[in-house]
Amino acid sequence: MYRSNEESKLKIIPLGGLEQIGMNITAFEYEDSIIVVDCGLSFPDDDMLGIDLVIPDVTYLINNAEKVKGFAFTHGHEDHIGALPYVLEKINIPIYATRLTMGLIEHKLEEHELLDVTERNVVKFGDVIELGHFKVEFIKTNHSIVDAAALAIYSPAGTVVHTGDFKVDYTPVYGDAIDLQRFAELGHEGVLALMCDSTNAERPGFTPSEKTVGKTLDGLFSDHENKRIIVATFASNVDRVQQIINIAYKHGRKVVVEGRSMVYIIETAQKLGCLNIPDNTLIAVDSLKDYPDEKTVIITTGSQGESMAALSRMASHTHKKITIGPGDTIIFSSSPIPGNEKAVTKVINELLLKGAEVVFQDTHVSGHACREEIKLMYTLVHPKYAIPVHGEYKHLVAQARLVEELGLPKENIFILSSGDVLEISEDSAKKIGRVPTGDVLVDGLGVGDVGNAVLRDRQHLSENGIMIVTCALDGDGNLVAGPEILTRGFIYVRESDELMREMTELMDETIQNMVTVGVTDYNKMRNRIKEALGEFVWNKTNRRPMILAIILEV
Amino acid sequence: MYRSNEESKLKIIPLGGLEQIGMNITAFEYEDSIIVVDCGLSFPDDDMLGIDLVIPDVTYLINNAEKVKGFAFTHGHEDHIGALPYVLEKINIPIYATRLTMGLIEHKLEEHELLDVTERNVVKFGDVIELGHFKVEFIKTNHSIVDAAALAIYSPAGTVVHTGDFKVDYTPVYGDAIDLQRFAELGHEGVLALMCDSTNAERPGFTPSEKTVGKTLDGLFSDHENKRIIVATFASNVDRVQQIINIAYKHGRKVVVEGRSMVYIIETAQKLGCLNIPDNTLIAVDSLKDYPDEKTVIITTGSQGESMAALSRMASHTHKKITIGPGDTIIFSSSPIPGNEKAVTKVINELLLKGAEVVFQDTHVSGHACREEIKLMYTLVHPKYAIPVHGEYKHLVAQARLVEELGLPKENIFILSSGDVLEISEDSAKKIGRVPTGDVLVDGLGVGDVGNAVLRDRQHLSENGIMIVTCALDGDGNLVAGPEILTRGFIYVRESDELMREMTELMDETIQNMVTVGVTDYNKMRNRIKEALGEFVWNKTNRRPMILAIILEV
Repeated sequence: MYRSNEESKLKIIPLGGLEQIGMNITAFEYEDSIIVVDCGLSFPDDDMLGIDLVIPDVTYLINNAEKVKGFAFTHGHEDHIGALPYVLEKINIPIYATRLTMGLIEHKLEEHELLDVTERNVVKFGDVIELGHFKVEFIKTNHSIVDAAALAIYSPAGTVVHTGDFKVDYTPVYGDAIDLQRFAELGHEGVLALMCDSTNAERPGFTPSEKTVGKTLDGLFSDHENKRIIVATFASNVDRVQQIINIAYKHGRKVVVEGRSMVYIIETAQKLGCLNIPDNTLIAVDSLKDYPDEKTVIITTGSQGESMAALSRMASHTHKKITIGPGDTIIFSSSPIPGNEKAVTKVINELLLKGAEVVFQDTHVSGHACREEIKLMYTLVHPKYAIPVHGEYKHLVAQARLVEELGLPKENIFILSSGDVLEISEDSAKKIGRVPTGDVLVDGLGVGDVGNAVLRDRQHLSENGIMIVTCALDGDGNLVAGPEILTRGFIYVRESDELMREMTELMDETIQNMVTVGVTDYNKMRNRIKEALGEFVWNKTNRRPMILAIILEV
Repeated sequence: MYRSNEESKLKIIPLGGLEQIGMNITAFEYEDSIIVVDCGLSFPDDDMLGIDLVIPDVTYLINNAEKVKGFAFTHGHEDHIGALPYVLEKINIPIYATRLTMGLIEHKLEEHELLDVTERNVVKFGDVIELGHFKVEFIKTNHSIVDAAALAIYSPAGTVVHTGDFKVDYTPVYGDAIDLQRFAELGHEGVLALMCDSTNAERPGFTPSEKTVGKTLDGLFSDHENKRIIVATFASNVDRVQQIINIAYKHGRKVVVEGRSMVYIIETAQKLGCLNIPDNTLIAVDSLKDYPDEKTVIITTGSQGESMAALSRMASHTHKKITIGPGDTIIFSSSPIPGNEKAVTKVINELLLKGAEVVFQDTHVSGHACREEIKLMYTLVHPKYAIPVHGEYKHLVAQARLVEELGLPKENIFILSSGDVLEISEDSAKKIGRVPTGDVLVDGLGVGDVGNAVLRDRQHLSENGIMIVTCALDGDGNLVAGPEILTRGFIYVRESDELMREMTELMDETIQNMVTVGVTDYNKMRNRIKEALGEFVWNKTNRRPMILAIILEV
């Protein structure tokens, strides 16, 4: 296990985000200074039953709290900012972010009542902030959210460039293209290591410009001029929303915004000047009835088939104000995130069943760099070492192989795991140890109070249900009440009279036998009850419900 | 609700399989004759916790058992034959199927001890069987399993062609191409209705020939001549397995077969003459050590990331006999079925982590007809009515629109739901009623004993766990034991001392209060206990575990 020391060397310590999608957080340490890039959450795996979200274990930061100088953020997606409130509750550290990123962070801090106690610094592209031994420069990039930044992290041991999530968009909807010149300058000055987005490292070619989506949408609006149009997309993709609004305006349609996250992100983006909505374009959902259907557009959440999102509620006829019918065209301006395919298809089927038309193709582009863009980034920055980041293990491997093709020696490419400590200098780079990392599960108000034992129980309960046997014994070990058997999630009791009767008889017999032979150890009794009932149930049903035996002493 | 009658009209009654993937079963009724095409299962949805498989409700067949003349099968996939044993346990009816289809059915009947009591008839392509007022002809098609058939169903009211799952493969690996000439003849003679596979109705063009996969695999074997090769594919795709074996033989490699379903399907296919394995090619897994790695191939199940399949066990180092390392190349000759994407990616990441190479592209073709093939089928058969089948609702809609483009009048195209009764003749076709249909859930040995109430409990338990409060009262209503609180899947109890103590105090107080004021109604007491504890837990944790209150009377 690695412990922080004060040697004059640079250490790169990913605390999450490697070998997984989400939970991005990386510490950089030099002598008595630590800075942290991003602080994201991840969404629970399928086997994390009942869990709301997952945050990284930041024990290492807490143990070295006096060294931590600040958090620098690359952009405002949940997998880069979502864990911040939980971490700030443990260590209060100044934060640095660009305009929209900070806007979205502030919304979270407000919810957690942390806004007033947190030092917040809005940074402009080109700004260089000083944090202990480090300087950090924010460099303009393109991504599926406005105000995304790469970071040049200057340390006495050399410069590390962290791209964050990025793509190269020569014709962005809003603001400038990625600052390729600055990356070139940095490469010219000399870069120790490049930490580059691997998400699309398996995909050939270039990711198309966000503007291409606008052209497709414009055509779809023309093709469906007699229909109400509903566009489902990612709330945080402000540029996408901007394009939809522009096209709606051009086609003389009013715009309704639906879905909680869509409403607040649009409000935030508009307030910060990242989104320009023409006057008299936005209308309230209640005003829809005042306009002909074909003169309205609804921009909504739910493009991932999330069961509680606005579009899913429309599709299942549980939305209070919007009813889907044959007069509607629904455009999915999105692609399903892996794992969401079935949920999305379910929503599409429901929409079609209501007679609506559904458009699913060519109305989305990725926010991540494909292989040619990754090559461009490496060629401009020309690092000594490569540390692929962002993506599952297979994506990191794909980038590593790509970088090898570009001529970087294999021994200069590091696929790290979360928790690895990479010590790096002009002369050498090597893994020198590990720090604690892991998933901290958030369930309701509880942070970290649900662990593997609880999840195993939930899994068992979910598949097989539970049977509870209760009885009361007096001080002499005589059965004075029960046994009663209660089941939940096991079988439909009202139609299983005989099975329930047989089980009760078995329990009666089992307990009476133990009483007769004088068993008094409650643990032993409980185990015998579980064994006898478990075996009986398995033989009858081939199922293994959880069995609890409760013995009360009167 | 429709009841069977003896009018001289043809009725088509899908009992499952529409608006869903799987559970294909369709009844055809004319006067006192009913025949049934296929009898498939479906796999449980994500919200059917703990369910093993789902079979159709065949109440309609049971209520009209004396009319049902036979089951005719199109091919041997689970979604077409898997529910048969469960249905045969309720109504014993003769079955008709081609060679491999019958071989796979017989394996199931054996498991259910139904082989000796079931009349089984193996049918050859071109055979016409007589079943009451119906005649059924089996027509050769191509699909991702050998011996797939379309059915021409002749009734006094006209001919219905049911394609089953099919594609057009001009160069199949084994046997003949689809019998397009017979479809053309039928079209010439006059076909009342075509029920055509819609699975790929959204995909343009033609599905490539199975043989193209062989060429790709051959190239991959050449490229990886110094590696052990592991190919994961669908057990039932006998032609794929045949190609892999042929290529292994050509490259001088021995073949090991891994995975229970792979072993038994290969055995069955070989016994029936659908698979030809050169002598001295198959070896036992234990003999792998006798050959150099680069002279062996392992054909395995697990291409869908199924957690218990052979490939997943190899990937997670829990396979007893095969260890993955840098000397292995794993080829996924498959594509993930929707919903399995994450599981497949997990296995790929694990394989890469062990240093293996993973090949995932261009090594699979679909078994279903794309748009051009569907057009070909409609043009040859030239039906009066179209009834798109096989696929989710969106696929049925896509085929319906395609058929409209081909010139069939909209009113002659019927998108049916499971349970619809379509009455059809030269003069007219209309939905005249409904019969009962639905999902019957199989859990262990139980068929239909788990319903919505049990599933709702499992869902609740899976997300929030359970709390059980137990106490004993004497005949006078005095508390004589407890209250005891037990939780499972709620919180890690050993680290929640204070919460457990507070809850026990609250329960003590709540019960004593009721005892003091003389509440004697146990239902009322249980409700108060649940309310008080539920509110307390919600305020403390924002969670809603299931709460059970058990009161024993001594």
